Amino acid sequence: MTMLRHFVLCPHSRAVRLALGELDMPYTLIEERPWEWRPEFLAINPAGEVPVLHLEAGQTLCGLYAITEYLAERPRSADLNPRAAALLPRGAEDRAEVRRLADWFGGKLDREVVRGLVAERVLPLLTRAEPAAPNAEVLRLARANLRYHLSYLGFLAYQRRWLAGDTLSLADLVAAAELSVLDYLGEVAWDDHPAAKDWYQRLKSRPALRPLLADRVPGTPPPLHYTNLDF
Amino acid sequence: MTMLRHFVLCPHSRAVRLALGELDMPYTLIEERPWEWRPEFLAINPAGEVPVLHLEAGQTLCGLYAITEYLAERPRSADLNPRAAALLPRGAEDRAEVRRLADWFGGKLDREVVRGLVAERVLPLLTRAEPAAPNAEVLRLARANLRYHLSYLGFLAYQRRWLAGDTLSLADLVAAAELSVLDYLGEVAWDDHPAAKDWYQRLKSRPALRPLLADRVPGTPPPLHYTNLDF
Repeated sequence: MTMLRHFVLCPHSRAVRLALGELDMPYTLIEERPWEWRPEFLAINPAGEVPVLHLEAGQTLCGLYAITEYLAERPRSADLNPRAAALLPRGAEDRAEVRRLADWFGGKLDREVVRGLVAERVLPLLTRAEPAAPNAEVLRLARANLRYHLSYLGFLAYQRRWLAGDTLSLADLVAAAELSVLDYLGEVAWDDHPAAKDWYQRLKSRPALRPLLADRVPGTPPPLHYTNLDF
Repeated sequence: MTMLRHFVLCPHSRAVRLALGELDMPYTLIEERPWEWRPEFLAINPAGEVPVLHLEAGQTLCGLYAITEYLAERPRSADLNPRAAALLPRGAEDRAEVRRLADWFGGKLDREVVRGLVAERVLPLLTRAEPAAPNAEVLRLARANLRYHLSYLGFLAYQRRWLAGDTLSLADLVAAAELSVLDYLGEVAWDDHPAAKDWYQRLKSRPALRPLLADRVPGTPPPLHYTNLDF
């Protein structure tokens, strides 16, 4: 069976789980703690990063970019399974718009907000016996950046049915994966961004996202509304 | 004509220039200084980042990911022009390997090394009348990371003809773009990494890379060997 090496609060791993879910591809999870730099893991992915996807046929794919493009290029049976187009639409310009936004949320939001918050708030609890206090300046900056990203997400969600257009796409999955990590950490002021909230609520009710709501990280419980579909 | 909005020491802009060059697509350049946050530029790309590509037919593409995948998906005349396959090979696994490495150099190396060095060494000279000294800790970390990335680049260049396999690909173009910025800043100890040096020398002699060697940034001249094909 398809196996995904992941870490529960890694947004890119979550995006791949959402993609596999939307494509109706069953998979099992193997937890990897990338910061431990296990030699066996580095032999699989020298970048020392998750997600890594092991396909049934034997291929190993490393990283969100290689994995999602590979899944989107699989020989399709779109006539039989309308979900097969869940990642990338057909038109060249529509595809460019999906990729622009997948890059925005998986790249820019990830770099400017999520990485810092996870690094300061979660990793110390998992790696140190006596964790230091989070760096207040990193938190402040990440939270300031987050407000701007939520405004843009809300703008898109207000203008369009899904983030990149009329249909659900990789852009929604990548954004939802990043947002789900922020939501786990209680960082999202949903009520200030009603259109973004409505968009996330629709995603939260999809079967592909459900498994993510059961994730737990030792020492960092999620807020009550994290699992609530009607938050 | 195709127009590229870029900044001369932006590695992703350089990667697009290399891709356009390898595809034999003529283009003109428009310099953008993303840190100025020009409202006209934000209206074109709300992310406020280069590269942005304006195609002749009117499409606007934002970011390395959307641009390179769009160029690779263009209707091909591979039989007429063997260069048309310069970005991505045909096989699914080969494509995944190219994307893994494009992501390594355009993502990981960019984040762990290049961004910090450009932010500390170049941007203050362009944005402030009395620039502060670079943050020594940022420089130290970036340089330590660079040694590790050069080792991996050397390992790949030693094992394979090109970074992702037998043929030149997007992986080489993205890596060469990042390395060309580091080389401009005199940060690359080429003699410690002979296989990487041999690989870069081969790229440097390609017509697509030549225009990059003529770039200059006020206040930061490149070292003498930057333009030398036989460095």
